[in-house]
Amino acid sequence: MTVLIVGSIALDTIETPAGKVFEVLGGAATYSSVACSFFSKVQVVGVVGQDFPARHEKIFALKKIDTQGLVKLQGKTFRWEGKYFTDLNKRETLRTELNVFEKFSPELPENYKKTDYVFLANIHPSLQLKVLDQVEKPKLVVADTMNLWIRTARKDLDKLIPKVDILMLNDEEARMVTGEYSLARAGRKLLEQGLLAAVIKRGEHGATVFSRQGVFFAPAYPLEEVKDPTGAGDTFAGGFIGYLAKSRSKSFGAIKSAAIYGSVLASFAVQEFSLRRLLQIKPRDIEKRFKEFRKLVSF
Amino acid sequence: MTVLIVGSIALDTIETPAGKVFEVLGGAATYSSVACSFFSKVQVVGVVGQDFPARHEKIFALKKIDTQGLVKLQGKTFRWEGKYFTDLNKRETLRTELNVFEKFSPELPENYKKTDYVFLANIHPSLQLKVLDQVEKPKLVVADTMNLWIRTARKDLDKLIPKVDILMLNDEEARMVTGEYSLARAGRKLLEQGLLAAVIKRGEHGATVFSRQGVFFAPAYPLEEVKDPTGAGDTFAGGFIGYLAKSRSKSFGAIKSAAIYGSVLASFAVQEFSLRRLLQIKPRDIEKRFKEFRKLVSF
Repeated sequence: MTVLIVGSIALDTIETPAGKVFEVLGGAATYSSVACSFFSKVQVVGVVGQDFPARHEKIFALKKIDTQGLVKLQGKTFRWEGKYFTDLNKRETLRTELNVFEKFSPELPENYKKTDYVFLANIHPSLQLKVLDQVEKPKLVVADTMNLWIRTARKDLDKLIPKVDILMLNDEEARMVTGEYSLARAGRKLLEQGLLAAVIKRGEHGATVFSRQGVFFAPAYPLEEVKDPTGAGDTFAGGFIGYLAKSRSKSFGAIKSAAIYGSVLASFAVQEFSLRRLLQIKPRDIEKRFKEFRKLVSF
Repeated sequence: MTVLIVGSIALDTIETPAGKVFEVLGGAATYSSVACSFFSKVQVVGVVGQDFPARHEKIFALKKIDTQGLVKLQGKTFRWEGKYFTDLNKRETLRTELNVFEKFSPELPENYKKTDYVFLANIHPSLQLKVLDQVEKPKLVVADTMNLWIRTARKDLDKLIPKVDILMLNDEEARMVTGEYSLARAGRKLLEQGLLAAVIKRGEHGATVFSRQGVFFAPAYPLEEVKDPTGAGDTFAGGFIGYLAKSRSKSFGAIKSAAIYGSVLASFAVQEFSLRRLLQIKPRDIEKRFKEFRKLVSF
């Protein structure tokens, strides 16, 4: 099965207690596409500028990601600069240069329109809707969003949610969307909007999946060192939908395994800056850590 | 098997978003003894004042808790007043009246000295040491502590830790004791001090057990409403050591099940103010929720 992924492709400048890197490959579509590629074919939709380094383009080729939907526009690639503190759950955005991303209006290549699985990474919900409108008959749509759109584009978000099967949010966003402080109640309220499942990401505390079949708790892998949390949520989402596309199932069982595969991929992603670790691992590393996740919660 | 528990017995005045209660039964020894009593016989060591209500004394009798070690002194019972906010992980202490607790010098009744299982709830580490010195040959010692003692009584705490098998801390305290931000590294450092296991409690995010046999992640039960988080950690600890005493095992497998039973008991405790819910539940409720915990993490 093939997964269509739309989202940002960025050059990130990142400082964490473990060091600092300049203009490394980043962006939600990048992390999620690479994570997804371990399980399924990927078609990416995004935009870069003319300064986008050829060595980064090669990474998409290396992971056999279809880049027909990746357009190159006059101008500079989207840039983000951020700093993380000792508590890696907290970060400060120092600079956001939208550049070509400002003019991003996703148009799907013809052969993307029949794709069954869609991951709408965190971009303006009106763009997420625009992508979805071009997909003929998706079997499963997963969407991510952020506090900014919940505040400033609520109308579009409310139009999007009924068209989505699985929504991903962090705990703060789940509380914002539902107005409920209790995550259990927020999860129930999200389901009442017609979702198949809501995945609440809780960073170093793991993720909780709410579905009509029950609640599932995916732990976070207890890493001694997290070098760079950037892209962890996108990596989770990419592994998550990649596994669902591979398993061709929407069952609660498949969703639970998908959440663990997402957590496995995210646990690798944060061990090095940018996509370094994700580009080193092999399927056997993924399977090994998947088994470690099982041990982590078995009693 | 019998578990000796030492700690505070208090009259609590508590405000949470769910309401306010005045001078209800509380204290670490109270919560942990009642939780422990579902699995093992309990001997409690503590102090109350002459104003301690007879209806509270009856609760110990009802749960068949041995109160020979519970002394009544001239003066008033220890009182605590606190307020919780929407984020129930945050609380403000409004008032602490030590009263008779100020003169508390635990002396064990003769028949307590041969007890095999000991839970040292959160009191000054010099008092925890004093209790431990009176126990002839404990098989398993579990201790809790708090940020105050880490800051102000570090010497006594450092004397205590080598005599303890399992130490319980919250995440902030684990970071303080070890100087490590990463909980995985903090867990390893705690084990290097000779502990059999370190249990890091993370409130609504569950608890992580670090042992030389591996790491175990106990989830928190996804409750739609938490009315009063007071005593959750003590209830966890009481259920934890109670189960270990019942199973007569120190294996990693037993410790993992104990952490789940602790979480089960804590999940009941927070559903109502004070010990109300803990005093309603039956063993079958505990077994039912234990199975739900298994479902929560099975994939």
